[in-house]
Formats: sequence, structure tokens, C-alpha cells
Amino acid sequence: MQHFLSVDQLNEEEIYHLIALAKKCQQGIEQVKKPIFALNLFFEPSTRTKMSFTVAQKKLGLEVLDFNPDSSSVQKGESLYDTVKTLESIGADLLVIRHPDDDWAKQLGRNLSIPIINAGAGKLEHPSQCMLDLFTIYHEFNTFKDIRVTIVGDIKHSRVAHSNARALQRLGANISLCAAPEFKDTNLDFPYVSIDEAVEQSDVLMLLRIQHERHHEMNTTTNYLSTYGLTKERERKMKEKAIIMHPAPINRGVEIDEDLVECNRSRIFKQMENGVYMRMAIIQLLLKKWGIYDEDTI
Amino acid sequence: MQHFLSVDQLNEEEIYHLIALAKKCQQGIEQVKKPIFALNLFFEPSTRTKMSFTVAQKKLGLEVLDFNPDSSSVQKGESLYDTVKTLESIGADLLVIRHPDDDWAKQLGRNLSIPIINAGAGKLEHPSQCMLDLFTIYHEFNTFKDIRVTIVGDIKHSRVAHSNARALQRLGANISLCAAPEFKDTNLDFPYVSIDEAVEQSDVLMLLRIQHERHHEMNTTTNYLSTYGLTKERERKMKEKAIIMHPAPINRGVEIDEDLVECNRSRIFKQMENGVYMRMAIIQLLLKKWGIYDEDTI
Amino acid sequence: MQHFLSVDQLNEEEIYHLIALAKKCQQGIEQVKKPIFALNLFFEPSTRTKMSFTVAQKKLGLEVLDFNPDSSSVQKGESLYDTVKTLESIGADLLVIRHPDDDWAKQLGRNLSIPIINAGAGKLEHPSQCMLDLFTIYHEFNTFKDIRVTIVGDIKHSRVAHSNARALQRLGANISLCAAPEFKDTNLDFPYVSIDEAVEQSDVLMLLRIQHERHHEMNTTTNYLSTYGLTKERERKMKEKAIIMHPAPINRGVEIDEDLVECNRSRIFKQMENGVYMRMAIIQLLLKKWGIYDEDTI
Repeated sequence: MQHFLSVDQLNEEEIYHLIALAKKCQQGIEQVKKPIFALNLFFEPSTRTKMSFTVAQKKLGLEVLDFNPDSSSVQKGESLYDTVKTLESIGADLLVIRHPDDDWAKQLGRNLSIPIINAGAGKLEHPSQCMLDLFTIYHEFNTFKDIRVTIVGDIKHSRVAHSNARALQRLGANISLCAAPEFKDTNLDFPYVSIDEAVEQSDVLMLLRIQHERHHEMNTTTNYLSTYGLTKERERKMKEKAIIMHPAPINRGVEIDEDLVECNRSRIFKQMENGVYMRMAIIQLLLKKWGIYDEDTI
Repeated sequence: MQHFLSVDQLNEEEIYHLIALAKKCQQGIEQVKKPIFALNLFFEPSTRTKMSFTVAQKKLGLEVLDFNPDSSSVQKGESLYDTVKTLESIGADLLVIRHPDDDWAKQLGRNLSIPIINAGAGKLEHPSQCMLDLFTIYHEFNTFKDIRVTIVGDIKHSRVAHSNARALQRLGANISLCAAPEFKDTNLDFPYVSIDEAVEQSDVLMLLRIQHERHHEMNTTTNYLSTYGLTKERERKMKEKAIIMHPAPINRGVEIDEDLVECNRSRIFKQMENGVYMRMAIIQLLLKKWGIYDEDTI
Repeated sequence: MQHFLSVDQLNEEEIYHLIALAKKCQQGIEQVKKPIFALNLFFEPSTRTKMSFTVAQKKLGLEVLDFNPDSSSVQKGESLYDTVKTLESIGADLLVIRHPDDDWAKQLGRNLSIPIINAGAGKLEHPSQCMLDLFTIYHEFNTFKDIRVTIVGDIKHSRVAHSNARALQRLGANISLCAAPEFKDTNLDFPYVSIDEAVEQSDVLMLLRIQHERHHEMNTTTNYLSTYGLTKERERKMKEKAIIMHPAPINRGVEIDEDLVECNRSRIFKQMENGVYMRMAIIQLLLKKWGIYDEDTI
């Protein structure tokens, strides 16, 4: 792992290593002692991912630089490669990038001498989200073997759904999908179940966000929540120890009943907290691999 | 005081305590020794308030995170509550919020386990500005008793005027108002005086900003400065020790003559300096109340 | 040197002193031990200059504050002077400013009690860019005497061209210019040469950016690169030790062939790295002159 670009590139050992590192970060760690510059380039709106990386970097003791494409030479037509090469020359030791293109990450890594973290690539990849979801599930059940996970919602447009499904299956979990007809992705090789089946059989109900635009495109006489979403009635039929996950931002009253967002089963805000620990783990691992920082504490 | 939302919620003892703490901050204090994350959410333009909080936080030794709603999930329609809850989950220890709604602060505090500071709520509240004004006046006269304060300008649209008038009266000051007919607020129970009366009788002339838009709506044959503003001629009639205050941004040549902005009586830039000390005091008090930081130095 | 506003204001001794300081910074320095607040005000888009100053400030151990005019009282019509005076009152110890006006810097310095660094003034000045170019050339040849420098491209609209030409001439270099007819500036008293002469005679080929807008205004049947730019064929005719410079952002394939941007002769990304050291030097010098920080290490 030279760059952190996709969960597919990680082997099982690396995944478990990152989970263990994240656990350590949760318990508190020493800050680095020399100035290391982390630079965050977000070409798309983001609250939680950007903030989460920033907090993770600051908790590790890094210097954080924020790159704002709106007030940059990107406006003058500079390419992503030239922008990144510039930031490397100026002194960045680590880059965290989100960009609307699907495949920016593949093109970029070659000529750089600093590590890159993919914080979102178009509709395809969001690997740090996937890793924090894995951490949350493992933290809950202490295993992935035979855990029944159903991913529910807009499978077709979700960058989380695909990588989560693939990664969880590799680790031994049992994956189903659940979606309104418009949101099904027929390229995925997992069984589809109804929302009522999903509710009764799953250990993990992994809800996805229904984007407003897409929701309104649907037949407006359909009440999405009652037909496809997690209502209070359905929640009561869940297994005793089953949990609810959601990558957020949440569309309260659409994919999930307002009152369930902070219920006992919900790990939604816990996922956000875990995201910080997982991002600390990813950054630590890269700093170590590149010899930027390798004290024993990391 | 769980959150700092309004000066009305503070009792006299708390006000004097904050003034004493601000005085201490002016003299220099020890920085905190562990990473505490302050997060600033400004949903409206602001130079001095946001910068002032940022400098206050950094002088206290906090880690400062900037939340930019323009590039966040707020664009995807996320509610203020969910945004704030997210930031809490991600690791914020303290939130400073400015938002255009009048009553966001009341709705928000309940389910949070971190302190909130109101840095501006719609047209109604701007309590840290009020506290820095109180600090500036107390610092000058060493008392509020019988100090004659006249608030001059756009009383109707000012979030500073209302809370300042109420707070100063409670503390024993003598309040008058002075405004062009369009800018009077008839709900306030304080006497109105003319600008010439104001100038002669006041210990504190507290000028307010006349917003360009509103100024232009007025009869354009009226010269606002000569009719309602503080001219050089009027300034010469002020009491020997009387001072001029203004929350800024200043509209030079409208509410005050260009040459008076930095004259001997002016405390306008002093107020900005005091704002940093007062905000340090507010933050310290909250960190202590919530047990986030309670070394003797705070 | 009270403020750093123009290279013209520096004498030769000061220029060599800054170059020596930058060299020291490259080798690594101690961070300052007390909180000093640097504030960056960029009223125009900028990647490298703003980032470069930020990294320079953080490497020196300063606290960095970012001022975003888009979300500030500047939107309410506040003047640059009042904004700057406000930031001084709030606690800035050092201001770095870029503004689209040509002459903001002259007007500003007088009433301030903190140092200002000009990071770009309209079309006229960009003195930290000039100083980093001088540093890069000196670092390469260990002298300026009789070094042949040709500045190539949009001389007319470049703020770099004018100050570089004047400064290099003062230091003993031999300056030529090379431009398409539309881009010639007839006010400058330096000889114009053709691109082919430039290539053969120069020790330093200092390319300038051709702005897209201006490029498209030109006769579109002209291929700019082959007629006026640095092609691979021309590069092969350069002197053995000659170098290529460019202030960036680069317009790949317009002023320079795509493949030459990172060739052996290119110092383009090296210039960016050098920019950080030079800005550290400029900041250090000002902090020392104003008595803000004057430990031996600086």
C-alpha cells in the first residue's frame, strides 16, 4: 500500500491491521514531534469527511493545510496533476483528495513522491468510509464471519455500497441488497431482498442516503419511507442485537424514521466518531510506509 | 450558564465575573496543555467576530477548526441539528455558531453534550458583542452606575442595540436612544433624544452602523451625517471624558465623520481588541463549567 | 525595510541578505517559541503563493489565520484600510496581502503598527515571486554578474517580468525580452530578441504564462507553441548549463512543450520549493526589524 486509493487493493491482513490501529487510536496516542504537513484538497462539498480527516490529522499532531479550489489556480485551468505537483513542491508530506472524476486516483500516483489518500472519487470509491464501516461492524460483533449485512437504498448511485459489499463478502460476511426498482444495480452479484425480509434477517442494516433530487424523480404518490424505508414498526421486528448504520448526511423521514436516527440500535453518530480513529490509522500506516514518521508509538 | 446564548440569561455576578476574566486575559495567560477542539460555524459573512473568536481560541491554546457551510453537506439540505451533532461526534469540544435564524440557539442546546456559544442569531442576539461593549465601558469608568449611554442610529434593525440597552440598564446605567424616524423601534421602553442632546449629555455615545441599503432608501436629499450623525462640530460639544463606541464595520462619513474614527475619544478599535479578551473569558468559563479544562490558570 | 512592498525598495545588500537567509531556511531552522499571529488576506485566487506563505509561516512556528474576503465584512463595503486596521486590533502581528488594485500597498502602510508583505498588487508588483526567482538563479550560478536572462512571453501583462528585469539588471545580469508583437511592452528599456536567439544565447530562459483569454484573442491560425514557445527542438539548442524557469501555473503545450515541464533543465517545481524558503526569509527579516521576534536563530 503506497497510496490509500481503494479497499480492493488491501489484503485481509492489512484490513485487520488498520482495524487494530484504529482501536489503538480510540484509546489515545502520542502526537508526532516534528512538523509534518497534511494537505486536504476537496473539489466537492463535504462536511464529515473533510472535518473527520482534519480532526484525525490534528489529533496525530500534524500541521493541516486546507486547499480551497474555489480561490485557487484551478480556476485558471490548472490540471489536477500540476496542482498536486505544486503542493508537493511547496512542502506537503501527505495529500487527502476528493474529486468528482471517477478515476483521478489511478492517474495521479505515479510521479509523486508523497502518499495520497482517496477521500472520494466520483461515484466509484470512498475507501475511508468503507474502512470506518468495517471498523464499526467489527467493533460490534468482533468478527465478520457469517454476519448478515443488508445494504438498503440507492445502491445504483452509491459509492459506499459497492466497495462495502465486496469488502464484507471477502471477510466472510453474508451480503444482501434491498432497493426500490429505480435504485437497483444489476451489475452486482448479490441477492436482492424486500425491506421486510431485510429487517428480520439482518445483523446490520446499512441504510444509504436517498438524494433529494432522485427521490423527487420517483413517483410522488409513493411514500418512500413506508414502502422502502425503515419505519418504527419495521424497527421493532429487527433481531435483538441488530444495528442500524448510515453513512450520512441523513434524509430524516425518507430512508429512516426521524425518531430512529438516535435510537439504541443506531450507530450513525458512532460511525462518525469511528471515522476519525480509522482515518488516524490510515494516515499513520502511510507515514510509516513512506518513512515520514516511524516512532514506535505509530 | 451551560451554553452562552444570551446576555439576558446571565446574572449580574456572572457578568462581573466575565469582565474580571477578560481583564486577566488581557494581562496574558497560560495556554491549555491538551488538544481541545473549537469549531466555528459561520452561516453569515463576518470579519471581526469570526477572526476574534479564532484568535481568542488560539491564544488559549485550542485547536481551531473552521466549518465552511458553502462547501458542506448543508448544501445537500442537512439540518443545523444534524450538522452540529455530526461535528460533536467527530470530536468538537466547543461550538461557536452564527446563523441567520433568530431562534436557532433555543432549539439546539438540548441534545448536545458540548457547550455552544452564540456568535450571532438573526436580528436578535449577538451576546459576545454585548459583553465586549460592557467590558469596554467598565474598563473606562470602573462602574456602570449612573453612566449615561446613548445608543445612536438604526435601533430598529440592530441586534446590538436591544441587548446592550437591557443589560446596561440592569447594571445601573442610564440609557437613551437616538434615531431617525425610520430607525426608531417603538417596542423599546427607553427615552429618545435628539443627536444634539445625545452629544451633550452622554458619557458613552454608542453609534450603530447604518446599512447602505437602508441609507439609500431614505430621502436622498437628506444628508444623513449632518442631520443624524456625529460631525466634528458635534464632537467638540461632548463631555470631557465621554467616549465614542461603534460595533463596526464603520460607514465612514455616514454615521460618523471620517476624521473621528481614530480620534482620542474613539474606542472603536479598542473594542475589537477587547473582543478577543472577552471571548477568551467566555470560552474559559464554559470549558470550566463542562469540566473540559479546569486548571487553576483558567 | 519596514514593510516588504517592492523589490525596487531593497538595496543590493538587503537582496543578498535575504538570499542568504533563504539558504539558511532551506537547511532547517528552529521554530519560534511564542504565539505570533500571521494573517493572510488574499483578495484574488491563488494556489501557490498563498500555500507557500502558509507553509513558510507554519515552518517558522507562527499561528496562521486565513482571511476569506468572500465571507467577510468586505462584502458589506468595508475599505481595505478598515479591514486591515481591524485585523491589527484583533491581534495580527504580520499581514500578507494580495489585492487586485495596483497601488494598495503605498496607501496602506502609514497608520499601521505591524509589518505588511505584498503578495501581489494588481498588475504591477509580486515581489516575493521576484525574490524567489533571484534566489533560484543565484543558487544555480552563484552569481548574477553577466548571467544572460531572457524573459519570454506575455511581457505586457506580467507583474513578474517588470520587477525581475529591473532587479536582475541592477545585480549585473544581462537582460533580453522575447514576445509576440501583441505581448511586447514598449515602455521597457531592454532589447527584444527572437525565440530562437533567446534559446541559443540564454543561461536562464524565464518563461511567462500566456493567459487563456489572451491566447484565444490572438490569431487562431497561429500555433503559439511552434511560433513563440519552447518546443523540444528549441530546447536541444540551449546552452549546456542553461535552465528553464516559469512562475506557474503552467499552460502546458502553449508556452512550453508538455514534455519539458519536468525535464532536467526545468527549475519550475524547484522555484516553488524555493518560494517557501524565500518567504520564510522575508518574514523573519520583518519580525526582527519590528522587534516582534529576534532570537539568535532568526
